[in-house]
Amino acid sequence: MIPAKYVSWGNAGSTIRELAAYGAARAKVIGAENVFDFTIGSPSVAPPESVLEKLRLLAADPDPVALHAYAPAAGIESVRCKVADYLNRSFGSSYDAGDIYMTHGSSSALALVCAALLSPGDEALALAPYFPEYRIYAEQTGAEFTEVLCDLESFRPDMAALEAKLTEKTALVIINSPNNPSGVVLDEDSVKEIAGLLRAKSAEYGHPIYILADEPYRELVYGGLTVPFIPSFYPDTLYCYSFSKSVSLPGERIGYIAMGKDMTDYADVKAAVCGAGRALGYICVSPMFQLAVADTLGDVSDISVYDDNRSLFYDELRKLGFTCIKPDGAFYLFIKAPDGDSRDFCRRAMEKDLLVVPGDDFGCPGFARIAYCVPMQRIVNSLPAFKALAEEYGL
Amino acid sequence: MIPAKYVSWGNAGSTIRELAAYGAARAKVIGAENVFDFTIGSPSVAPPESVLEKLRLLAADPDPVALHAYAPAAGIESVRCKVADYLNRSFGSSYDAGDIYMTHGSSSALALVCAALLSPGDEALALAPYFPEYRIYAEQTGAEFTEVLCDLESFRPDMAALEAKLTEKTALVIINSPNNPSGVVLDEDSVKEIAGLLRAKSAEYGHPIYILADEPYRELVYGGLTVPFIPSFYPDTLYCYSFSKSVSLPGERIGYIAMGKDMTDYADVKAAVCGAGRALGYICVSPMFQLAVADTLGDVSDISVYDDNRSLFYDELRKLGFTCIKPDGAFYLFIKAPDGDSRDFCRRAMEKDLLVVPGDDFGCPGFARIAYCVPMQRIVNSLPAFKALAEEYGL
Repeated sequence: MIPAKYVSWGNAGSTIRELAAYGAARAKVIGAENVFDFTIGSPSVAPPESVLEKLRLLAADPDPVALHAYAPAAGIESVRCKVADYLNRSFGSSYDAGDIYMTHGSSSALALVCAALLSPGDEALALAPYFPEYRIYAEQTGAEFTEVLCDLESFRPDMAALEAKLTEKTALVIINSPNNPSGVVLDEDSVKEIAGLLRAKSAEYGHPIYILADEPYRELVYGGLTVPFIPSFYPDTLYCYSFSKSVSLPGERIGYIAMGKDMTDYADVKAAVCGAGRALGYICVSPMFQLAVADTLGDVSDISVYDDNRSLFYDELRKLGFTCIKPDGAFYLFIKAPDGDSRDFCRRAMEKDLLVVPGDDFGCPGFARIAYCVPMQRIVNSLPAFKALAEEYGL
Repeated sequence: MIPAKYVSWGNAGSTIRELAAYGAARAKVIGAENVFDFTIGSPSVAPPESVLEKLRLLAADPDPVALHAYAPAAGIESVRCKVADYLNRSFGSSYDAGDIYMTHGSSSALALVCAALLSPGDEALALAPYFPEYRIYAEQTGAEFTEVLCDLESFRPDMAALEAKLTEKTALVIINSPNNPSGVVLDEDSVKEIAGLLRAKSAEYGHPIYILADEPYRELVYGGLTVPFIPSFYPDTLYCYSFSKSVSLPGERIGYIAMGKDMTDYADVKAAVCGAGRALGYICVSPMFQLAVADTLGDVSDISVYDDNRSLFYDELRKLGFTCIKPDGAFYLFIKAPDGDSRDFCRRAMEKDLLVVPGDDFGCPGFARIAYCVPMQRIVNSLPAFKALAEEYGL
């Protein structure tokens, strides 16, 4: 009587987490300095001092009863106001507090949006490569999960492939930019093309196709690039944000969903998100962390560290003969397995204590993800092992 | 295409939260001191100083990157060790770290256990009165939710009624002690009777009937009473605990599920809980709050405040002629509507700015819940209004 899907998801674990656990165990045997763990996308840079200072103040709050009390399910009113104002200032949107639903990071935002918009028989379509847990959040609802691979040269969306995958059952398209694992930022032209296609298909099918825009890496972009704000181009967008990466609080689980009033069936969508939050066991998001981020909106960890890592690592891997997507955002390199077999590539890397994640898990075989949110010394120290790997492939 | 159940749960809201919201709005009109809000079970006593001190230390931790990093999905290993040790010391159990799954408070523990053990066609049975969200956590899985009312004189389980409600489809029995809303503590004899019945029925039906023991109020008992530890009497128990009430951190969402290795299908149950956690969007519980509670296990807020409130309020309401269950635990009084119509009773109370919650929502019409986790002065100030209400009923 125990649901098989949960047993299987529980036993399967996540490849990323399992590799990271292997790395931790291996470090005990050969020393942490000899394991080049590039598996987990956990920030290596401290939260902004403003956030830390706010946390210290809250921890010393003279009224801990009020501070740690139950917050409203959708979030503290003043926090939701500040988030809406921040979005409006930044992107010219017109959210108000009622349009913001605070979540336990991106993961719960994604799970709630999937629950709120998908039913058995529906399809959720993710632009690949994508974060592996998308599949579980979609399938959890009884819907089908499908994916459409980007163009593997430019890493831009393959519009013909996207159009071919859309069906009458498509209820949700999941887009992640800056992208995990490729580091690619979706450009404005691509957003406009996708919006145009989905608008046409929504009209053709007689029901809205919503976009879930998953943007935990929005601020992690390099070279002065701008990340288009998808809701400006496509009102039927549920914008999901997380503070995990931008202010380095991944364990503390804080983020939000923004839903614009010009969205189709706005009231029902909002109610369904709230209802899903209730049914999936979410009572409220930590008031301590809601208050910590609300007063420091726009502050970001020192991403110059990631930028330096990115330049160094990208250049060195290219010099060694590897092919790599040039990442404009996030903190990942997506490296091509020289012979196309990414699982074998990761296995061979592991023999040299280089821990990287096969792209297969991200819907993109043939590549491997290297998380460079690590101390730069780890990158430097890993280069001889990458050199040996390159030589093994005859690069 | 938007799932109707989520829209309806989102729109319905919780009566408790809606009454509390009404109270907050009313306070702005007539002044907070004139609204006698007894709706929400949010602690009124500060967290123990040990917990607050630990939070201050963590907020000043010199390595915030490590502190706020992703924690393992099931919890930080050292925290799970300490929780297991604490349970073993307290109750003679034999849990180890692997048996503990840290959760975002009781709510997520309940949602995960329901997801892990219930499928469409199954039944979850709650001993009434019960916390209203139980129904949603069970129905969310597609299972049926049923309830069995206790004996309304003694507020002990009605064993004949329980036996009559068990069917081949019963997969889970939800028990909450000390009880919200009645304040009644399940005695050891009752636990043994329930365990005996469920053991016999499990054998008869050829599948285990699990108990979900929801115990956020375990430490909130008065008069030296002992709360039986249900897993000691019935190994097929998933023990759900929350720190919300015991250390006054309800908004911060921290608790756990303990699963004993002598449980039927232990490995599958544990995997299903992990898989459900993953699918419902839970990544990990705040490391800051995990560490804060793990080093202060057994420390409890000053519950003498609740005890004083309880004695005063109970005595005064009795003097006014009301009939009330004598509460041995939690921080609620369960008062009888003099004419049996509890919704009307709450409406008439509201006219006097006394905010209490109808028992109907807890599966127990005819009563109303009064949360006495409030400043004592509010209780004192409310007595004239209760007196007027008693007079209105001719008590």
